[in-house]
Amino acid sequence: MEKVRFGIIGIGNMGTSHALSLSRHIQGAELTAVCDANPDRLRWAEEKLPDTVLKFSDAEDFYASEAMDAVLIATPHYDHPPLAVQAFRHGYHVLVEKPAGVYTKAVREMNVAAAGTGRMFGIMYNQRTNPLYQKLRDLVLSGELGEVRRMNWIITNWYRSQSYYDSGGWRATWAGEGGGVLLNQDPHQLDLWQWTTGMMPVRIRAFCQFGKYRNIEVEDDVTAYAEYENGATGVFITTTGEAPGTNRFEVTGDRGKIVAEDGKLTFWRLRTPEPEFNATYKGGFGSPECWTCEIPVAGGDGSQHRGILQNFTNAILYGEKLLAPGEEGILGLTLSNAMHLSTWTDDWVSLPLNEQLYADMLNERIRHSSFRKNDGGSVVLDVSGSH
Amino acid sequence: MEKVRFGIIGIGNMGTSHALSLSRHIQGAELTAVCDANPDRLRWAEEKLPDTVLKFSDAEDFYASEAMDAVLIATPHYDHPPLAVQAFRHGYHVLVEKPAGVYTKAVREMNVAAAGTGRMFGIMYNQRTNPLYQKLRDLVLSGELGEVRRMNWIITNWYRSQSYYDSGGWRATWAGEGGGVLLNQDPHQLDLWQWTTGMMPVRIRAFCQFGKYRNIEVEDDVTAYAEYENGATGVFITTTGEAPGTNRFEVTGDRGKIVAEDGKLTFWRLRTPEPEFNATYKGGFGSPECWTCEIPVAGGDGSQHRGILQNFTNAILYGEKLLAPGEEGILGLTLSNAMHLSTWTDDWVSLPLNEQLYADMLNERIRHSSFRKNDGGSVVLDVSGSH
Repeated sequence: MEKVRFGIIGIGNMGTSHALSLSRHIQGAELTAVCDANPDRLRWAEEKLPDTVLKFSDAEDFYASEAMDAVLIATPHYDHPPLAVQAFRHGYHVLVEKPAGVYTKAVREMNVAAAGTGRMFGIMYNQRTNPLYQKLRDLVLSGELGEVRRMNWIITNWYRSQSYYDSGGWRATWAGEGGGVLLNQDPHQLDLWQWTTGMMPVRIRAFCQFGKYRNIEVEDDVTAYAEYENGATGVFITTTGEAPGTNRFEVTGDRGKIVAEDGKLTFWRLRTPEPEFNATYKGGFGSPECWTCEIPVAGGDGSQHRGILQNFTNAILYGEKLLAPGEEGILGLTLSNAMHLSTWTDDWVSLPLNEQLYADMLNERIRHSSFRKNDGGSVVLDVSGSH
Repeated sequence: MEKVRFGIIGIGNMGTSHALSLSRHIQGAELTAVCDANPDRLRWAEEKLPDTVLKFSDAEDFYASEAMDAVLIATPHYDHPPLAVQAFRHGYHVLVEKPAGVYTKAVREMNVAAAGTGRMFGIMYNQRTNPLYQKLRDLVLSGELGEVRRMNWIITNWYRSQSYYDSGGWRATWAGEGGGVLLNQDPHQLDLWQWTTGMMPVRIRAFCQFGKYRNIEVEDDVTAYAEYENGATGVFITTTGEAPGTNRFEVTGDRGKIVAEDGKLTFWRLRTPEPEFNATYKGGFGSPECWTCEIPVAGGDGSQHRGILQNFTNAILYGEKLLAPGEEGILGLTLSNAMHLSTWTDDWVSLPLNEQLYADMLNERIRHSSFRKNDGGSVVLDVSGSH
């Protein structure tokens, strides 16, 4: 194979952006087909994409066409798993937009469908290309920070106005997105939280507030507390209602603490690991000698969406290792599902999650939803500044 | 009255420091008596304090002496309320060290005893003299920040080694202190949390870990979540087990956010209050214009213990307003008691607190304590750098 032929299903906000990237910027990739049920989006494709790109309004026809080697799924979240399962059945490689899906039960079925196909399976976790989080992961996984003790992520700079929510009828509804800030804005942070530390909690207690700041039915404000097998704890705080908000991720360990904020990584490194100091110190109020270290981080946000597209293409062409394997999409989603479930049951949620219970309780919310927004129609927003 | 005559009961760590301050630094104050049951401490008093200072080994004799106008109570925490009640009965003014006590039921009795005596009642919340928190309170209470939405205090820089805990048999035991980091290190922050914002929660869900990092029976690691009547939420994270730790207090409101960290106050101020922006904005991803404002704060930590001593003295002599009225000691302690109770019951705790239940559950822990430390004897630590 000289070039990977890509078909995109879903050319709304993100799919449009990926279509243009694939046509212009990704070496070894070629856009050969798009599919969207919305006539407006197909008209856009007719006008803006080359004639060589086939246009489909029906997913069955799209999959049957064999016009591509790889399918990029950029539809609304709920459709990711079933469309991926279908793609694997047709023998395509699959790159799925984030989140992997809305509830882990469906995502688990997607992972099962992927297993043993010999096809590449990736997820658009473009923040994994960000040098800041790559370096943080390096410091934690290489043991520089020692055993992790506490993680505290305040990620409240996802400001969204009511007009944003009104720009699409599916937005911020149980039926349309299956959640709010956790499903739409935070999937990257929920992924990075466990990717940079290599740790998943054993249980979670979370406090979601639904429609607190906006006229929506899903969560727009969350505080979650997590406990880990090694005794570490974590806090994750997020909202779309605050401005300017904060994005500050602090990780502490036996050897000090690291803070990722404002694109910078600072490592307060203990000369002696804390447990060693404690075991030998005989005084009153002393503490271990600490060095403030500015950690060098490559500039910019990394290669982002194009980086993931290029990596996925290279994986197919040359066997390059995937930066964001699709199977890992379930991890961040598990955190998000657990936060909902803990709020709904007003109780702890232990992992592994009771996935059937979550699916049932989500369905209940969809069935009983009487929510109608002042729908401004499905407007395609300019997401060039989005993640 | 030209001078306020002070008697100090309890001349251990803090009492010693106050005795020296009163003798040397406080205008209009005079140290006339001390009381301590420990012969070592009385020997110290004989050697280091003027002969004019009466020394008592028995509280009854001390109170009966009428050798003072005001009593400063610097004994272990449990004794604060009963000793204060006794002092009020004798007609003395009372300045009590922090915390006000160990459980709010007893502290409420102290407040009742104070009411209507016409005597001054103060508490050693010396951090209220800190210009940083005074300015924060000013910005919040004057309305500059708008309606408060979120408070997030990471106060993990209270590092204490095992040798610290071993320096006193009473330290970090249910019977001796009635708690750990919440009772000994955090009373200032628990006070400032509600004093700077003027807000007490309606309910709390907390996660204390007991003896996690040290060989102690009380909590040395806490994450607490709080909800407020106006919908605001708060998180309070503390430990004595981390180095170097963090002291970062973030408060967000309708008009932006304020962060107090490293002795600096930064106010990210929105040009238009967020609710107003949201009501009129019609675009997609926009957010309110935000100005980063460095707020001027007077240098240093303020007048601290001496400031409280001076203010209390002036209140008696000239009717100066108390910066830290004793009756307010119950507020921070309520937060701390609620955090314990929520952990013990593994459930929400609504305020007002069930004070009898808390007292019962605390007593249970004292009765069932089988904890014996490697007691290094009761060493008097140098607390000159302590708060």
